[in-house]
Amino acid sequence: MSEYHAPVKEMLFALRDLGNLAAVNRLPVFADATPDLVEAVLEEAAQLATEVIAPTNVIGDTQGSRVENDEVVVPGEFKAAYDQFVESGWCGIAQSEDYGGQGLPYLVGLATQEMWKSANMAWSLCPLLTTGAAHAIESHGDQALREKYLPNMISGKWTGTMNLTEPQAGSDLAAVRSQAVPEGDHYRVTGQKIFITWGDHNMTENVIHLVLARLPDAPEGSRGLSLFLVPKYLVNDDGLAAERNGVKPVSVEHKLGIHGSPTCVMAFDDAIGYIVGKPHHGLAHMFTMMNHARLGVGLEGVSISERAYQQAREYAIERIQGQMPGVKGRVSIIHHPDVRRMLMTMKCQIEAMRAVVYMTGAALDLAHGAEDEAERQKYQARVDLLTPVVKGWATETGQNLTSLALQVHGGMGYVEETGVAQHFRDARITTIYEGTTGIQAGDFVGRKLLRDGGQSLQVFLADVQETCVELERHGDSLATIRSALLDGCTALVASAETLMAQFQKDPAMPGAISFNLLMLMGVLTGGWQMARSAIVASDLIAEGRDKEFHEAKVITARFYAEHIMPGIGAYKKAIESGGELVMALKEDQF
Amino acid sequence: MSEYHAPVKEMLFALRDLGNLAAVNRLPVFADATPDLVEAVLEEAAQLATEVIAPTNVIGDTQGSRVENDEVVVPGEFKAAYDQFVESGWCGIAQSEDYGGQGLPYLVGLATQEMWKSANMAWSLCPLLTTGAAHAIESHGDQALREKYLPNMISGKWTGTMNLTEPQAGSDLAAVRSQAVPEGDHYRVTGQKIFITWGDHNMTENVIHLVLARLPDAPEGSRGLSLFLVPKYLVNDDGLAAERNGVKPVSVEHKLGIHGSPTCVMAFDDAIGYIVGKPHHGLAHMFTMMNHARLGVGLEGVSISERAYQQAREYAIERIQGQMPGVKGRVSIIHHPDVRRMLMTMKCQIEAMRAVVYMTGAALDLAHGAEDEAERQKYQARVDLLTPVVKGWATETGQNLTSLALQVHGGMGYVEETGVAQHFRDARITTIYEGTTGIQAGDFVGRKLLRDGGQSLQVFLADVQETCVELERHGDSLATIRSALLDGCTALVASAETLMAQFQKDPAMPGAISFNLLMLMGVLTGGWQMARSAIVASDLIAEGRDKEFHEAKVITARFYAEHIMPGIGAYKKAIESGGELVMALKEDQF
Repeated sequence: MSEYHAPVKEMLFALRDLGNLAAVNRLPVFADATPDLVEAVLEEAAQLATEVIAPTNVIGDTQGSRVENDEVVVPGEFKAAYDQFVESGWCGIAQSEDYGGQGLPYLVGLATQEMWKSANMAWSLCPLLTTGAAHAIESHGDQALREKYLPNMISGKWTGTMNLTEPQAGSDLAAVRSQAVPEGDHYRVTGQKIFITWGDHNMTENVIHLVLARLPDAPEGSRGLSLFLVPKYLVNDDGLAAERNGVKPVSVEHKLGIHGSPTCVMAFDDAIGYIVGKPHHGLAHMFTMMNHARLGVGLEGVSISERAYQQAREYAIERIQGQMPGVKGRVSIIHHPDVRRMLMTMKCQIEAMRAVVYMTGAALDLAHGAEDEAERQKYQARVDLLTPVVKGWATETGQNLTSLALQVHGGMGYVEETGVAQHFRDARITTIYEGTTGIQAGDFVGRKLLRDGGQSLQVFLADVQETCVELERHGDSLATIRSALLDGCTALVASAETLMAQFQKDPAMPGAISFNLLMLMGVLTGGWQMARSAIVASDLIAEGRDKEFHEAKVITARFYAEHIMPGIGAYKKAIESGGELVMALKEDQF
Repeated sequence: MSEYHAPVKEMLFALRDLGNLAAVNRLPVFADATPDLVEAVLEEAAQLATEVIAPTNVIGDTQGSRVENDEVVVPGEFKAAYDQFVESGWCGIAQSEDYGGQGLPYLVGLATQEMWKSANMAWSLCPLLTTGAAHAIESHGDQALREKYLPNMISGKWTGTMNLTEPQAGSDLAAVRSQAVPEGDHYRVTGQKIFITWGDHNMTENVIHLVLARLPDAPEGSRGLSLFLVPKYLVNDDGLAAERNGVKPVSVEHKLGIHGSPTCVMAFDDAIGYIVGKPHHGLAHMFTMMNHARLGVGLEGVSISERAYQQAREYAIERIQGQMPGVKGRVSIIHHPDVRRMLMTMKCQIEAMRAVVYMTGAALDLAHGAEDEAERQKYQARVDLLTPVVKGWATETGQNLTSLALQVHGGMGYVEETGVAQHFRDARITTIYEGTTGIQAGDFVGRKLLRDGGQSLQVFLADVQETCVELERHGDSLATIRSALLDGCTALVASAETLMAQFQKDPAMPGAISFNLLMLMGVLTGGWQMARSAIVASDLIAEGRDKEFHEAKVITARFYAEHIMPGIGAYKKAIESGGELVMALKEDQF
């Protein structure tokens, strides 16, 4: 069974040394979130993650959950960990102080989330969904709804869900059929929802569902959906959860992984619900949370890879097998170059992904909190540009890395009791939920590049170019990093130009190249942050600070440049191939 | 639940149209294995695979196996399918006629194996291991052993196993500790073996174990291992399995996948055994079978990908989701370019892998059966060169492709009942057993390139160059295939030169670059065969034969050239990075 040790030092490097925290601290509202405070917060969270939450991971995987008397029953250890999590106030750490949150930056919340996700990804989905639902209610609900529901959701006393998917409506939410009929000051909601994460459970006294449904007069398609709040237990005027509402879990899915997270089929049968926001604007209301949720899932790519990497590293250091020229007797397998290649491949991409997710998190804080409207817009554009990249690239990468971690274990990796296979299985959902990689790629190419004619990409590229200039200052020692980054920028520019030049002639082309363009952008963004990491680390070495740690940073960044960045060339060539071959076969030629 | 339809037309293309069968037919011993006969054999096998074996796949996955009264109990459906398989004579189809086999080419046996493996990979391991064990006994056992054991193993009445691994001896077999003490005409074998595939079961009346153990006077290390035949039931002079021997299964592993294949911990306790071949030559004797076993596992990459692809294709055609410019109403997801990209990525690599495995299989037949010693040596060198490539590249690719097949299903792919997750889980063992990808890569670089100074690689490259010349004849229509193949050859030559030039200066370098060089070679070899496929298909189109099918072949080959071959550039650059960065970190810097 694998232990987890929160990599606080690595996290602080990405938060503090890469400048993300400083950017957020410039906002007056977050001026108090000093590096020292944040370090203390992380240390405290690390203790909870390591000692309390991480040990529940295997329990959730092996016991799973079941439906009993119209309620989902989860392992008792889950509830114990959850209670402690709520009691220590972690649920609302980055949420509004108006309703009892602690008001820390989203960036800091992300860093704590990284630890919950590493500790037990399945379990961590429960607070993730609660935060998302609370955010939607705060953004779009009326004052009465907010006062009635938010304090208990932000504290974690109640949890929240998102009820979007139906059997015929997965990626295509326009096909949602659930109905909501007005009745006095509320609505009656009826329909079946599937794939509802933490749709029900016995950890808290109430569960607050957000449900997409159609009003009787709703137009067809995605502009006819409204958002409803449907509590598991109706809440009386004293704020107490009283009578059971007409919603129940029908079954939980038997899944490849995240067994600890109950994925429910939910039945709504004349359930009392309250509209959130404007009629027919439900999808738009949900989309305002999308950046948070997708960044959260992208972060899962970091977290699950980190946990798997830790286990592989430990195994590689302990497992004795084979010999090595120049060394007497048998050696631990970390001496074998191909094992090191696997560990370096994991390490460098985990660090790249973490830096990119944190940078995007800081941008989200600035998009919300910057004083100047133009600055808010600038950061919002950056968040919009990077969100599908983070979600798609970091989860695809996470799958490769958990697979590599399993591979380091040889035959033992294939035995479930070793524990690394769980990470491999758990990771496999991340490229699917909150929008598949294909959906992210389509969003990136369609909404984030074509819609603004590549403007926000230009601004992004200018920032990367600045790093290229800085790299010059370090001469030969970072030369391969610089040339890889320059090549990457050239490839991105060329690929974006191909897209802009051809999309009108060939309507299938943007979709056909979207995956490759998304991955190219992800690898490049990671390379940019690793380049910055190398610059910062080199400067810290020059100042004589923690030489071993920062030398490892430089080496790891070089490894990324020389082993991972070359993948950009392959993506670029596939993009040049365009849409024709992708679409050439008839259905029966497959 | 997924059905399986054996792709006989695709298999015949790779066997017949790509010239592999003709190469084997030139051997007098295989002159009778005409295309018509082979087609009939494949059709018959396809029926058994599709109707009898494939339906047991989910049963094995969900029921698994257990130890009861010192015996492994497998699902009853497995025994029923096995009995039918043995009765129809499939077990010994490519084995020696001297002991009751049908004496068909190994190549044809491979094609039938592809179907068993697609139908039920876990189940198919039982005959695979039996064939391997029989082959070892035939090659190295004395006449008495052969007569006593081979007929029942070749018919499949008894099955065989390979007992190599011990807890401290995985990739490093030199560390094996099991002991064998002489006693009269036999030996007493004692020790514990782990990860023994089909180590025991209740499908047949006897199981014949081949066991690596040390004689009392054995030198240390790998040159001190001998090979023993240890039957589960001792065989009396009438050839009947009588008294139980001192070997039993202790437990079966709880694995990520191939649940239907019992992976046993085996205890040998003073078990009666018979030496196979020469004392202290056990490892060498096992290695003579390695090419067969490793090709067989490489083929699993094809088989499991094919099955997963079939399921993804069916889902993509049936699942209605989303809209498409220019099409009214909702469409099946195969209309979406990114879904097509995934299907094409699967299709083109499955065809490439199949062609490479069959070509290597034909070379193995020629290496054994060619009349001329020089020709035998030439083909043996080709088999030796390509075996680690097939094993490593096809299994790594198979993992990517089963993952893509799952991705095509979206959320449904993550639900176990859909069935595609099983293929993803099953595939995950293939890069581990019969030598991990790292072991294959080390074998390729060390034994297959450095040992002969790159000679057999030169011969290989000359053959690829011939195809490049042929491509010129087809002008523009195959131009991107030609340029990708030429680029690939240049990259391989440059990478091999880097290796030859630097390995003496930097002892870690060969191991550090080995994975990338192996994958480069695999992608290129696949590209070569796809180029040949495009040439053959173009010529058949010109002759007016099955235009739709052969046009799909050309398009698929072009897709491979434009989407898969660019990966070669990335491998090449990683190889150029050498060994330094891979080895740079200290253990505690990870």
